[in-house]
Amino acid sequence: MTRLSHYLLPTEKQPPADAEALSHKLLVRAGMIRQVGAGLWSWLPAGWRVHQKAVQIIREEIDAIGGQEMLMPVLNPAEIWQRSGRYDAIGGELFRLKDRRGADMVLAMTHEEIVTTHIAQVVRSYRDLPQILYHFQIKERDEPRPRAGVLRTREFIMKDSYTFDRDAAGLDVGYEKHRVAYDKIFDRCGLEWYRVDSDVGMMGGTGAHEYMAPCPAGENDVALAPGYAANVEVATATAKPVQLPPALDAPAEEATPGLTTVAQVAEALGVPAGALIKAYPVIVGEDELRLVLVRGDHRVNDVKLANALGASFRPAQASEFAERIGPAGYIGPVGTDVPILLDSALDGDSYISGANKADAHLRGVKPGRDFAFTEADVRSVEVGDTVDGHEIRIEPAIEIGNIFKLGTRYSVPLGASYLDESGTAQPVWMGSYGIGPARIAAAAVEQFADEKGISWPRALSPFDVHLVGLGKPDTEEFALAERLYDELRAAGLDVVYDDRTLGPGAKFADAELLGVPLRLTIGRRTLEAGEIETQVRRGRETGSIGLEGAAQAAADLWATLP
Amino acid sequence: MTRLSHYLLPTEKQPPADAEALSHKLLVRAGMIRQVGAGLWSWLPAGWRVHQKAVQIIREEIDAIGGQEMLMPVLNPAEIWQRSGRYDAIGGELFRLKDRRGADMVLAMTHEEIVTTHIAQVVRSYRDLPQILYHFQIKERDEPRPRAGVLRTREFIMKDSYTFDRDAAGLDVGYEKHRVAYDKIFDRCGLEWYRVDSDVGMMGGTGAHEYMAPCPAGENDVALAPGYAANVEVATATAKPVQLPPALDAPAEEATPGLTTVAQVAEALGVPAGALIKAYPVIVGEDELRLVLVRGDHRVNDVKLANALGASFRPAQASEFAERIGPAGYIGPVGTDVPILLDSALDGDSYISGANKADAHLRGVKPGRDFAFTEADVRSVEVGDTVDGHEIRIEPAIEIGNIFKLGTRYSVPLGASYLDESGTAQPVWMGSYGIGPARIAAAAVEQFADEKGISWPRALSPFDVHLVGLGKPDTEEFALAERLYDELRAAGLDVVYDDRTLGPGAKFADAELLGVPLRLTIGRRTLEAGEIETQVRRGRETGSIGLEGAAQAAADLWATLP
Repeated sequence: MTRLSHYLLPTEKQPPADAEALSHKLLVRAGMIRQVGAGLWSWLPAGWRVHQKAVQIIREEIDAIGGQEMLMPVLNPAEIWQRSGRYDAIGGELFRLKDRRGADMVLAMTHEEIVTTHIAQVVRSYRDLPQILYHFQIKERDEPRPRAGVLRTREFIMKDSYTFDRDAAGLDVGYEKHRVAYDKIFDRCGLEWYRVDSDVGMMGGTGAHEYMAPCPAGENDVALAPGYAANVEVATATAKPVQLPPALDAPAEEATPGLTTVAQVAEALGVPAGALIKAYPVIVGEDELRLVLVRGDHRVNDVKLANALGASFRPAQASEFAERIGPAGYIGPVGTDVPILLDSALDGDSYISGANKADAHLRGVKPGRDFAFTEADVRSVEVGDTVDGHEIRIEPAIEIGNIFKLGTRYSVPLGASYLDESGTAQPVWMGSYGIGPARIAAAAVEQFADEKGISWPRALSPFDVHLVGLGKPDTEEFALAERLYDELRAAGLDVVYDDRTLGPGAKFADAELLGVPLRLTIGRRTLEAGEIETQVRRGRETGSIGLEGAAQAAADLWATLP
Repeated sequence: MTRLSHYLLPTEKQPPADAEALSHKLLVRAGMIRQVGAGLWSWLPAGWRVHQKAVQIIREEIDAIGGQEMLMPVLNPAEIWQRSGRYDAIGGELFRLKDRRGADMVLAMTHEEIVTTHIAQVVRSYRDLPQILYHFQIKERDEPRPRAGVLRTREFIMKDSYTFDRDAAGLDVGYEKHRVAYDKIFDRCGLEWYRVDSDVGMMGGTGAHEYMAPCPAGENDVALAPGYAANVEVATATAKPVQLPPALDAPAEEATPGLTTVAQVAEALGVPAGALIKAYPVIVGEDELRLVLVRGDHRVNDVKLANALGASFRPAQASEFAERIGPAGYIGPVGTDVPILLDSALDGDSYISGANKADAHLRGVKPGRDFAFTEADVRSVEVGDTVDGHEIRIEPAIEIGNIFKLGTRYSVPLGASYLDESGTAQPVWMGSYGIGPARIAAAAVEQFADEKGISWPRALSPFDVHLVGLGKPDTEEFALAERLYDELRAAGLDVVYDDRTLGPGAKFADAELLGVPLRLTIGRRTLEAGEIETQVRRGRETGSIGLEGAAQAAADLWATLP
């Protein structure tokens, strides 16, 4: 029973002044969400229906792979986060507070600590494994820059599931089950999506994939080629070749007075930027100076570099490297004793680099001959790079899900072990798997909206059919709309019925804004022609169905929609 | 698909050492909940099923009265709680924290502030009212004494709904709808319950009822008589009569050296305690001294007294009243200029009271003649009091729901108004309605458990049928149990199937602990006798059904259970 005359659907003509993302604008304008504070949102009734449609699809697919639904609390004693190490490792994103007795508490960002603690309490033997546990629960994250409506918020619901297995092979099985379930979930939600290799990030662990929904509002960049998809944070590709200058027997100095940037030096020497070596001095750990080299037209990728270093790092200040390397703007690998990490794309034999003295560069620098190095892939991929001979493209996308192989990252510090068949204690192997229903909803808006409003996939739409009655009470067409409302519901459709006393323009505008897949209109023309006007929201094509058997015809048409 | 061989059901023989309440002991022992910290609990899979059964019943009944489900955040900007006045009015129960920018935040205990803010944003005209909004959401309350498992916790899910109406008459309609819905909810949950008059408490407003489930673990005391039920916080009854000493023309002094208690004076003077006036000096607001009088055998009721005073109060120190009234232990109403509030049960004409000097009391004190007063009902009812001639009894109970008429308590400070038909701005009239599904689950345990374990009402049980297979794999009875498992599910029953390699004793003990209404056992005897043993959990009566058509017979039997 959803009559708009009695339903809270506060549509707006104008989007919020600060809204940039399409989903932010349209979800507010369609009366589906309202802001409470920075990064804090309420879901109004129509929006909540969409959210819960996504929730139910997720629940069904996780149940289907043997997931057991439960609930763990948001408020956590800080102590278990201290034991896992994340209390100190995570910065301002983690909400910290004290309770009335002064005990340190945190608001959970995810639930590895709690769920692992439970498993440590209750799992004793190999017979108790494997297990798949999951819940839908609020997450709290003090995002430095909440943005884009419900895309990046400080509080949101996440489905997080956790697998517990006897060994790495068991984890692979649980991980693969989730991969298959996630593929089904995003297909059922009607989204365009892809699964990409990703970094393990703050979760720790040994492997990870992200699910991405491409759209302009996406915060992530994804590198794509036929058969290849990866977050640019971890993407690897073959660099676009570059024309190097002739090789020399030994490096030769060139005067480059006042030329401190790659562009300036390349132009002055008449070479492409890619013929230069860009030197990037970093401090690893407390105070270890290292020199990272990438091609002049490439950029260091912080995530890949941290993984290659196996440690966190920061850029070095000029005062920290000038003495051991050279003056800022003119540094290079030749003649320094600082350990060098060379990006794998620097595979030529004649580069230009800083000469480690002011106003000079070197020509003909050859890695290996002129300096020692260790090698790793530490650059960000670029448009024009190739994978298996195919040029990659880079697209923005929303992260809508992620799956992590945690291994024993949490089970060891939190004491989750079991006795194997020989009676020996072994750590439990874990995986962690997240999905944000709010992002699924926002991604669907971003991918399918047009200039009139939202166009929901059938699986996520708050209602199946939007019935617009144009007649005033006490008219024949009003009575007909009431009757059809009953018949459509009897045919198993979830109907929102616009019975308000508003003009056709306002009703049609609200319907196109709300984005229900099929609109049916009943007015005086319906009586005259014996037909009901239909509009399929995706593409806005209109048509008609006969009054006789209209409910079944509408149900049949609806079943064909995306 | 629930096979205990693959299900996380960590049953325990012993309850937690600190557990007192039956529901605390049994929900832990049955593997349904586990503690995370003080007042913080996780629901394990079987427990979560119970919780969600209660949630779904609530959802259906609130939907049926036109409730629109939504979701509001737990993390709230402190500012709106400051505007409503609750930021200062509520003490340590309200979790307060700062975000990374130093902004004051709170964790919501209820959602009046947020929902009223939304209504203030989106409701413009009388045409937009009435509305009923609700959500299921985490509440955070820093309870000073979390206790009894999930009965009093610091984090729990509550269904809170809110009605928004044009006027007091509209509020009455929304309130009555909720009363009817709540009655149905608790009936459907299979609980013993009653609805009682209650205090409005921290919610503010103009009227309230509580729903109570009687059981020994209850924290609330409820006064009951035929046709009458009220929280003792607000209960009113006719006092049990007391034999007063003969009236005098004027008060006469009696020496009572060293006798400072009601019991001592009553014994010394040979009168019942009820013949004395107990004087209770209080400080109202900042520093206003008042003297409250109740019968010697009665107790002042703090809630009723605060309501009668219309203000908060505290007991006065001896140093604060000695000069204006008299020495502690000997104070009374005669001869003081302090304003007097007389409890209505002091309706006789010859009492004994303190003489306002040391070691002396007065006989024959007559209210009205010997001192002026205002009158109010400020005492707690006692066993032996009567309502309409019926003696009351007082029972412990769990509060499982409450409904409040808020009136304009929140809409005025938070600016929720609408334009009436004449275009005049009017405040929205509100009601607020809470239910805790966790308390419903705990109350059901308390009310129906026996020495073997839990006995769920059918509507709340995690499963419909508990199928115990006693055969080892590769036996004929094992194959039969597997077949029946399929057939029972095909008959529409939700089955938990104990397919573990455990002995009959352990399996039966777990089944009786878990409390599913109907247990079916398949072992060698089944094959020999052609019958399946049944046990109805409530009462533990055993019986049997024939193998032929067993699934339907089980479904039929199940449908008759409470």
